[in-house]
Amino acid sequence: MRTILILTKDHREYRAIIEAELPDISIITEPTEECEIVLGSPSLISKELVKLPKLKWAQSTWAGVEPLLGPALRRDYVLTNARGVFGGLMSEFVFGYLLAHERKIFALAQAQQEKEWKRFITGTLRFKTIGLLGVGSIGAEVARTAKFFGMNVRGYTRSSEDCEYVDDYFHTLPPLPLGCVPARVEGRGEGLLYFANNLDYLISILPNTKETRKIVDANLLSALPPHCIFINVGRGSAVDEFALIEALEKDKLAGAVLDVFEHEPLPKEHPFWTTKNLQMTFHTSAPSFPEDIAKVFIENYRLYVEGKPLKYQVDFEKGY
Amino acid sequence: MRTILILTKDHREYRAIIEAELPDISIITEPTEECEIVLGSPSLISKELVKLPKLKWAQSTWAGVEPLLGPALRRDYVLTNARGVFGGLMSEFVFGYLLAHERKIFALAQAQQEKEWKRFITGTLRFKTIGLLGVGSIGAEVARTAKFFGMNVRGYTRSSEDCEYVDDYFHTLPPLPLGCVPARVEGRGEGLLYFANNLDYLISILPNTKETRKIVDANLLSALPPHCIFINVGRGSAVDEFALIEALEKDKLAGAVLDVFEHEPLPKEHPFWTTKNLQMTFHTSAPSFPEDIAKVFIENYRLYVEGKPLKYQVDFEKGY
Repeated sequence: MRTILILTKDHREYRAIIEAELPDISIITEPTEECEIVLGSPSLISKELVKLPKLKWAQSTWAGVEPLLGPALRRDYVLTNARGVFGGLMSEFVFGYLLAHERKIFALAQAQQEKEWKRFITGTLRFKTIGLLGVGSIGAEVARTAKFFGMNVRGYTRSSEDCEYVDDYFHTLPPLPLGCVPARVEGRGEGLLYFANNLDYLISILPNTKETRKIVDANLLSALPPHCIFINVGRGSAVDEFALIEALEKDKLAGAVLDVFEHEPLPKEHPFWTTKNLQMTFHTSAPSFPEDIAKVFIENYRLYVEGKPLKYQVDFEKGY
Repeated sequence: MRTILILTKDHREYRAIIEAELPDISIITEPTEECEIVLGSPSLISKELVKLPKLKWAQSTWAGVEPLLGPALRRDYVLTNARGVFGGLMSEFVFGYLLAHERKIFALAQAQQEKEWKRFITGTLRFKTIGLLGVGSIGAEVARTAKFFGMNVRGYTRSSEDCEYVDDYFHTLPPLPLGCVPARVEGRGEGLLYFANNLDYLISILPNTKETRKIVDANLLSALPPHCIFINVGRGSAVDEFALIEALEKDKLAGAVLDVFEHEPLPKEHPFWTTKNLQMTFHTSAPSFPEDIAKVFIENYRLYVEGKPLKYQVDFEKGY
């Protein structure tokens, strides 16, 4: 009988789902010396790592695993994250806010409060251009939804071009002349500015890595047209906060929806709370529903028992 | 050279688009005795009907044509309405409000105003059940979008079952035993109550006809579960206003979004302005973009010139 340690506030839901699917296991909620398998949130797992000398596999209930990447922490186990489950939820979030913007739902609510029959001219998503910073499994689902609504889709990636719903790809490095083998070039190059040109919506779905740090800076923001809306559902570290505030306050950008921040919860004195045309959503864009995450865990558990490679393994160096 | 009378406030846009596509025509904006063809809003056309003795064809820029259905008005011409162009826009409207509800975007905005970091539990469209009152070309597009988001789709129609995106159909009349030829049965029967059972969202896309009048009444509303959201993008006449107010005020229904009303603009003293959990959007759900409507007109104009039957003909008796 194998033992599974569950470290999340939703441990009761996880226990019920997993026990129904996997007979012949024992579930615990406190670390033991013998424990090899843990399912939980990265923040809770990171606190217990020292009490798990025999740990072989940790399944994160989140997509982001920053708390487990600290340089002082062990990396002698397989870390898998939750992938393939957030795309639909994040996509609903992104399109909820894009449609709210196009259909002016806050302005309409305001008019109702003032008892004014106001027939606003409202917009549509059709034929608009959306740019995705990062096209992993979540970005691919956002791209698929954008195509459903008749939009043009641009993707900005390190080098991958594997999503069929992206019309045009842009990369960290500019395209190379045929036959040219480059030395590793640092920097984001001009690809990012071509990507930004005339975007109606910019969506960041980037993880927190060295390469994505403050990629949304004054330079990128000034390349966007002033009617553009920026949405960040990736990580707060991708944004130069002061450059974003300046762009919004000076109407160089029409609006921003931020779900993630460098420091969460956002401190009360942070200027974002009252920045012009900035909406914040407190890291709610993709709730981890236990029934979704448990499925990922159960699938991986079966591979683990058979000694096969697990799905969604995190590269500790890359950070995702 | 044929003469086309354009009767809409957007006549400049229409003129530019139509003149570019159809050479050899003459566009006027005031009625003449000789005029055979008019393109315009039903309300403006209805006022000029007496000045158009030779009228053969009127193309409405709207989907609804009520102003041309009055019993005192002529019906000796072909009336075509705008169809096939509003589905996408209405669908964006409906899903904008459904997502705003699931993602609690008003509550999140309120929390931001109060500088409270509140991690609301938000919902999803996936696996929810949506019921469409009326499945014409607009309803079909709403159904298609609902399936995209992983929802269950019910349709309530007189008898048609031709939309592939509807999972279950319900009809005005209950299903008949095999071989039974019914006398015409009046009334809406039990089909409507089965249709309403356990709906998460009820969407009315019904036109204004005798048969749809106050179909959303106390009986139907009481068959809905209390977490249900009602959206009306059809016509205001489909709703028993006082029954709806009672359902909302007594929390028998979680919310309503009304785009259309019995009397528009809604009078200042109407209780809807301040009814609990009621949002109104002032008939903005599907703006008539001239580039879309002009396409319908031009297609029909070419059929007209060739003497072929026109598309989207209105049955004056049915009213749509």
